[in-house]
Amino acid sequence: MKSNQLKCLTDLPEPPYFSVIFTSLRSDVTDAYAETAERMLELAAQQVGFLGVDSVRQEKTGITVSYWKDEQSILMWKQQMEHQAVQSRGKSHWYDEYTVRIAKVERSYSFVKEN
Amino acid sequence: MKSNQLKCLTDLPEPPYFSVIFTSLRSDVTDAYAETAERMLELAAQQVGFLGVDSVRQEKTGITVSYWKDEQSILMWKQQMEHQAVQSRGKSHWYDEYTVRIAKVERSYSFVKEN
Repeated sequence: MKSNQLKCLTDLPEPPYFSVIFTSLRSDVTDAYAETAERMLELAAQQVGFLGVDSVRQEKTGITVSYWKDEQSILMWKQQMEHQAVQSRGKSHWYDEYTVRIAKVERSYSFVKEN
Repeated sequence: MKSNQLKCLTDLPEPPYFSVIFTSLRSDVTDAYAETAERMLELAAQQVGFLGVDSVRQEKTGITVSYWKDEQSILMWKQQMEHQAVQSRGKSHWYDEYTVRIAKVERSYSFVKEN
């Protein structure tokens, strides 16, 4: 799964569903970051209630928005053991700052250019 | 205002508030895009109910999340005249695909590394 793909332009169900908006500012530590980020996207995709993820990085700043069926799914993902270890390493190594926002998607609309 | 700044690690009020998650796939048309995007961030920041914005771009994919006091503020921003003209040009020129999601931020938490 490539982290810069926007998978959610198509495959999500109609709202309501939940999102986790993760905005981050990286530290200078790059050790094992890229492969761990990739692994977390793969692992998230295996969780119950996972609907999709959009993730974009520009220099040190990143936004990852993951989409979930309900709040319970988000809580279980937060508490997933491998993910917890990575969260801990994120604080000690990879991030200078981050914010997590849990938001209920109430409506959505899309545009796709016709060829 | 630089579009890759994460302004929302600090200055937002406590939830609840609203967010607009804009995920996009750019076309090959770059004409006037960068300055218009910058202008839209400036204009958004002048709207009633605007709280902040995070925006990150990686090659052709982008995620912009703007934060608003309430849904009415979001509606007014969508209908703002200069913004409407730009939305139209976005469809005809700058974007191959995009999705807009309106989501109510219910809770949030932040991490800031201590020096």
